[in-house]
Amino acid sequence: MEALIFDLDGTLVDTVYAHVFAWQRALAEANMTIDAWRIHRRIGMSGSLFTRGVCRELGRELTTAEIDALQTRHGELFRQLLVDRPPLPGAVKLLAYLKEKGVPFGIATSGGRPEIDKSLNALQVDGGTVVIERSDVVRAKPEPDLFLECQRQLGVKREDCYVIGDAVWDMLAARRAAMLCIGLLTGGYGAAELVEAGAFRVYRDAAELHQCLDEIGIA
Amino acid sequence: MEALIFDLDGTLVDTVYAHVFAWQRALAEANMTIDAWRIHRRIGMSGSLFTRGVCRELGRELTTAEIDALQTRHGELFRQLLVDRPPLPGAVKLLAYLKEKGVPFGIATSGGRPEIDKSLNALQVDGGTVVIERSDVVRAKPEPDLFLECQRQLGVKREDCYVIGDAVWDMLAARRAAMLCIGLLTGGYGAAELVEAGAFRVYRDAAELHQCLDEIGIA
Repeated sequence: MEALIFDLDGTLVDTVYAHVFAWQRALAEANMTIDAWRIHRRIGMSGSLFTRGVCRELGRELTTAEIDALQTRHGELFRQLLVDRPPLPGAVKLLAYLKEKGVPFGIATSGGRPEIDKSLNALQVDGGTVVIERSDVVRAKPEPDLFLECQRQLGVKREDCYVIGDAVWDMLAARRAAMLCIGLLTGGYGAAELVEAGAFRVYRDAAELHQCLDEIGIA
Repeated sequence: MEALIFDLDGTLVDTVYAHVFAWQRALAEANMTIDAWRIHRRIGMSGSLFTRGVCRELGRELTTAEIDALQTRHGELFRQLLVDRPPLPGAVKLLAYLKEKGVPFGIATSGGRPEIDKSLNALQVDGGTVVIERSDVVRAKPEPDLFLECQRQLGVKREDCYVIGDAVWDMLAARRAAMLCIGLLTGGYGAAELVEAGAFRVYRDAAELHQCLDEIGIA
């Protein structure tokens, strides 16, 4: 194994619960009641899949204008709820360690700029790091495009890449990219959910992964 | 089987994620950084266990004054974040159905009044319903006291009671009370976490439980 491809939200920064809460409130303001746990389990999938899921819960279609208004309001609420982008335990140190040791790594996120800039800054990610965002590919997770583009830019073979993520969408996208995947509990999924979705191993957070790099064959 | 004992937060009302977020922010304001998922997995345990868990995460003791200030601030933020107490799908209908059919049921919560009044009102729980709250017993979950007191007031045998909850703390407290327990996914735990903690069955929410009452031997 040679390279690590990281998801961002819930894997490296502690933003999942703020996303859940911002979505729930944006939907509630528009008189759309959806349980928080159902939103939680959809964070990290592509925006179009997410809104399609919302439609299914509501039992009706949403117009493009409604979807745009929801996304704008979600962004506003998210920024109100979470001023900082707290790095998850061990994340900054792990990325710095990989860089120091010359282990290829990248970040592949369903998010986009400028929203992700604060997270990348909080993680002390520099301009030399491969970061693949939503607009770089045609299809977001659970399609494999984000991870495949990251692998391509890292210049490694797909069978030499691990994907590190917190959501079943990361696991599914990794498997579709024919990459092994590792789950972290920092996004609030249970370990068994990640294993059932294909995780080769599950660690509590980036700090525990760092301590166990030998277990996954990273020198 | 004769009677059903329900947990409140995350089981009948959609409040868990607001509790998580209110705790995380109250802690952050006091310069205590704790990951949201670690808070999430502790919601529903007794307040003293919760604060002891926080101390362990922080690696230091908290003073009584600090704990009081945190609890007060959590309450303020919770009420700001969640003005309503949205009943979870099927909860109101299930309780009304049980009442209509004369199936004994009660609510046993680690919360207390006046905080829980809004939730009970949203669920249309009337004065005739057995509600056991934190101050009615010496020890909260995962100790069995809340469920045992509810069973006593319902006048049924403990082996004839199901506990319905969303958290592993409900499952543990139910097993310590020698009651069978049923997990709901509405609190954001994975199904396997609830089964591992002892759930006899797991349903998505109160609506699905309602549809499956025959599966658990409730007429």
